[in-house]
Amino acid sequence: MKRDVGHRRWAVAEGYIPPRSTGRGRALESHETLCILNAGNCDARVTITVYFSDRGPAGPYRVVVPARRTRHLRFNDFRKPEPVPKGVDFSSLVESTVPIVVQHTRLDSRQPALALLSTIAFPVG
Amino acid sequence: MKRDVGHRRWAVAEGYIPPRSTGRGRALESHETLCILNAGNCDARVTITVYFSDRGPAGPYRVVVPARRTRHLRFNDFRKPEPVPKGVDFSSLVESTVPIVVQHTRLDSRQPALALLSTIAFPVG
Amino acid sequence: MKRDVGHRRWAVAEGYIPPRSTGRGRALESHETLCILNAGNCDARVTITVYFSDRGPAGPYRVVVPARRTRHLRFNDFRKPEPVPKGVDFSSLVESTVPIVVQHTRLDSRQPALALLSTIAFPVG
Amino acid sequence: MKRDVGHRRWAVAEGYIPPRSTGRGRALESHETLCILNAGNCDARVTITVYFSDRGPAGPYRVVVPARRTRHLRFNDFRKPEPVPKGVDFSSLVESTVPIVVQHTRLDSRQPALALLSTIAFPVG
Repeated sequence: MKRDVGHRRWAVAEGYIPPRSTGRGRALESHETLCILNAGNCDARVTITVYFSDRGPAGPYRVVVPARRTRHLRFNDFRKPEPVPKGVDFSSLVESTVPIVVQHTRLDSRQPALALLSTIAFPVG
Repeated sequence: MKRDVGHRRWAVAEGYIPPRSTGRGRALESHETLCILNAGNCDARVTITVYFSDRGPAGPYRVVVPARRTRHLRFNDFRKPEPVPKGVDFSSLVESTVPIVVQHTRLDSRQPALALLSTIAFPVG
Repeated sequence: MKRDVGHRRWAVAEGYIPPRSTGRGRALESHETLCILNAGNCDARVTITVYFSDRGPAGPYRVVVPARRTRHLRFNDFRKPEPVPKGVDFSSLVESTVPIVVQHTRLDSRQPALALLSTIAFPVG
Repeated sequence: MKRDVGHRRWAVAEGYIPPRSTGRGRALESHETLCILNAGNCDARVTITVYFSDRGPAGPYRVVVPARRTRHLRFNDFRKPEPVPKGVDFSSLVESTVPIVVQHTRLDSRQPALALLSTIAFPVG
């Protein structure tokens, strides 16, 4: 069965790490996430560039999504080449060596009840 | 009127069954859902494969969506060939014998106020 | 400027009118909505068919979205040929005489804090 | 690397600025947002038209998204040629001189727990 599904480049125009959390533990900590599915038979070498409103882009952030695996990456965890600041508007561009599928999710627990958003990313080629 | 609408393969990169609930009853139990519309005149034999970050895929999970019907499937209810674990990141690939439309929805009631997310799935062929 | 934007047929696989509300007034009443933009210069005659899991489709529900106008239609308000039941899973198919753009939104106020979801509908032709 | 990503025209059928807020400060004020990514090397001159249910369109609202930058625009902040009223249903059409990517997000803090929704906008050319 054909399993190379998706596109090699995806854009997410929304991005924001809520600067506070009220939940307990990592699961309920406010976070901004890229969910990446690599349903194919080759590992995906993925590069993420982060765009801001008032400075040049950050990155590239590099990650491998192995064949037939998913990774849900939190921008909160990005360290190299620099952390992504909290409470700041950003966008991201995701580029992969093989076709992948990307979805964007935020959990916001700034107030004492969490909120969620999610959308398929936009395939750009 | 032409009623075969959609695609035969869809991907959902996000997936997570919240491991706790505060609501009462099935309606408010935290759940992760695939909503499938079969607007056509033939039953859809649907196969779902679930991808994880640290192990090989699970499935295939098999379901029939009859002609001119919808089914809103909870990953929580999947049993064969194995349950989908709660509190674990996953993705899914949906494959059908006829065109369908797929949307992904989560209800998260871990905190004492529910949160919702939803997105159209990504058509991959 | 070209203003006929969108497609003539759209599908929304998710659908559910939460059966209870805690908010006050129409704005905070739990509702399931189709938002339709007709940016063109001709009125759109729109037909909506609602699909269920355990019975045949309901409809057609008919509405006009005038040229250069938007309408945010609540399934809660549908009356002819029959109301859409609350607390029941459904999907919908939207068909128009001219190109439109459709987005699906739910406001759920069953618990004492509202939840929202939204997604672009799926263009099927 | 090719960096002109996206489309020149996008539609968002949903639009509503919640008329009240319970959060403190700008971050938690109820807002309706267009997130725009310009990953290209030329500034994007962007025009936004807002459609209503009971009157003609408002706009054009004009904004520049510089090359390799993002802007998250709140309809709440639109002033010229006229403010966008709160508590009113609307849709929007976004047109740019260069390819961009558009995502639509709402933060609703009318009740004492915020709610979020987001979706990729619909590319119309």
